[in-house]
Amino acid sequence: MPDPAKLALNQITTKRWTLAQAIDGCTRHGVRGISVWRDKLAEMGVPAAARALKDAGLAVTGLCRGGMFTYADEKGRAASRDDNARAVDEAAAIGARCLVLVVGGLAPGSKDIVGAREQVKEGIAAMLERAKAARVPLAIEPLHPMQAPDRACVNTLDQALDLCDALDPSRSGAIGVAVDVYHVWWDPNLERAIHRAGPSRLLGYHLCDWLVPTRDTAFDRGMMGDGVIDLPRIRGLMESAGYDGMHEVELFSAEDWWKRDPDEVMRILKERYATCC
Amino acid sequence: MPDPAKLALNQITTKRWTLAQAIDGCTRHGVRGISVWRDKLAEMGVPAAARALKDAGLAVTGLCRGGMFTYADEKGRAASRDDNARAVDEAAAIGARCLVLVVGGLAPGSKDIVGAREQVKEGIAAMLERAKAARVPLAIEPLHPMQAPDRACVNTLDQALDLCDALDPSRSGAIGVAVDVYHVWWDPNLERAIHRAGPSRLLGYHLCDWLVPTRDTAFDRGMMGDGVIDLPRIRGLMESAGYDGMHEVELFSAEDWWKRDPDEVMRILKERYATCC
Repeated sequence: MPDPAKLALNQITTKRWTLAQAIDGCTRHGVRGISVWRDKLAEMGVPAAARALKDAGLAVTGLCRGGMFTYADEKGRAASRDDNARAVDEAAAIGARCLVLVVGGLAPGSKDIVGAREQVKEGIAAMLERAKAARVPLAIEPLHPMQAPDRACVNTLDQALDLCDALDPSRSGAIGVAVDVYHVWWDPNLERAIHRAGPSRLLGYHLCDWLVPTRDTAFDRGMMGDGVIDLPRIRGLMESAGYDGMHEVELFSAEDWWKRDPDEVMRILKERYATCC
Repeated sequence: MPDPAKLALNQITTKRWTLAQAIDGCTRHGVRGISVWRDKLAEMGVPAAARALKDAGLAVTGLCRGGMFTYADEKGRAASRDDNARAVDEAAAIGARCLVLVVGGLAPGSKDIVGAREQVKEGIAAMLERAKAARVPLAIEPLHPMQAPDRACVNTLDQALDLCDALDPSRSGAIGVAVDVYHVWWDPNLERAIHRAGPSRLLGYHLCDWLVPTRDTAFDRGMMGDGVIDLPRIRGLMESAGYDGMHEVELFSAEDWWKRDPDEVMRILKERYATCC
């Protein structure tokens, strides 16, 4: 059984709540960590959010999200750079343990996935110094291959780790990966890749489940225990590779969990965390 | 532009046609190869189909499909072995250039993807001698990771090639892979994997396109040119790796192409093959 003190909420799971409500919800349900989304952070205001998170004693496991590095033209590139600079500053302001990077898919009208991946590398390189100066580790999150065209063209842990090795060969801690079971559970190379990452590169661990059938390629994640992922196995791999951080529950679920009362979602995710993870 | 003489029809693309109709359709549209499905073959009868294919002068690029090696109990294992033995015999009877293997996902109720992969290896090993004796090469088809739970737990070309190397280290030609652009286009390791396979392992090449958005994880493939796959690039990789076989169009499309008049589908796929592939 996982340590209840390691359970964290990714705020998207309780999408109906504001950030203030999510902070209160975590406190009320005894959840000690939260991963914050930037739209909700903007709504509350960064200084007020930073205070509220601190007052609640919550670990901020991540800020979602930077990235979206792929672009069709120079204007797109400049906009991506500006936005990522702001994301680093926001992550620093709320004491986030990492800034999660969802790297972007194909630029509009493009079929050039090789070129998109070059843009991603260049985009991360361009923000790395600022992130280091702000002491905000960058967590590249590989997304499931079915999300390659529209969300992220980094699709395996090994691919993300190749980027880390290229950009930070000394394993300084400035860059690593977020391991989301939904995106990586199928990977035949999962065990080796998690160990390759090791404690210096493992910056986050995200939980949910893979439903059969899956009715939507983005917004049909299941609650832990409702799908086919062997969650205890993957936690075991993370722990044996030296990961010591929190385990955050991140559900995108337009037709089910997002429609429910967030307090009910919190009760159920705590129970499932204790019994299925 | 690809060689029009290399265009083949995977019969599922014209699902409304019987095998006899599909054979006639290929002849009528000047398509020189066909990949046959076993349910349609059974409906026509193997001897009659073998004669008709020969009379039409069609190359039989593959038989779809063997596989489904994962099982929950001994009865399931025995049924899988029997069915695969029959599939080899049918492929030999119609002169198929390969038997395509869709290996199966998780057994009912199972979350053990590691164990499922062991079952696959054991199942292929168990049929390999029969396939060799019948001179039917086995083509492992890695399926897209989104189909891992319910269709195939072999999800990358490298994973399929690892199986080939384990079962046939001498590269005898008895086992190889079918490369379907739909399943592999996202793979950051695609170029290396296709070259790793080389001519002795590249047994088939399947065409369609990836639609954005994708509305179903199995039955929403696009016609070449309607999606985001850089098809000329992948053909170039296949050719530079020494692949010299046909290019078969395989569309699973419950809500679009399967509903159309198959003659219209044939006209359009020929045109798209000439312009987009």
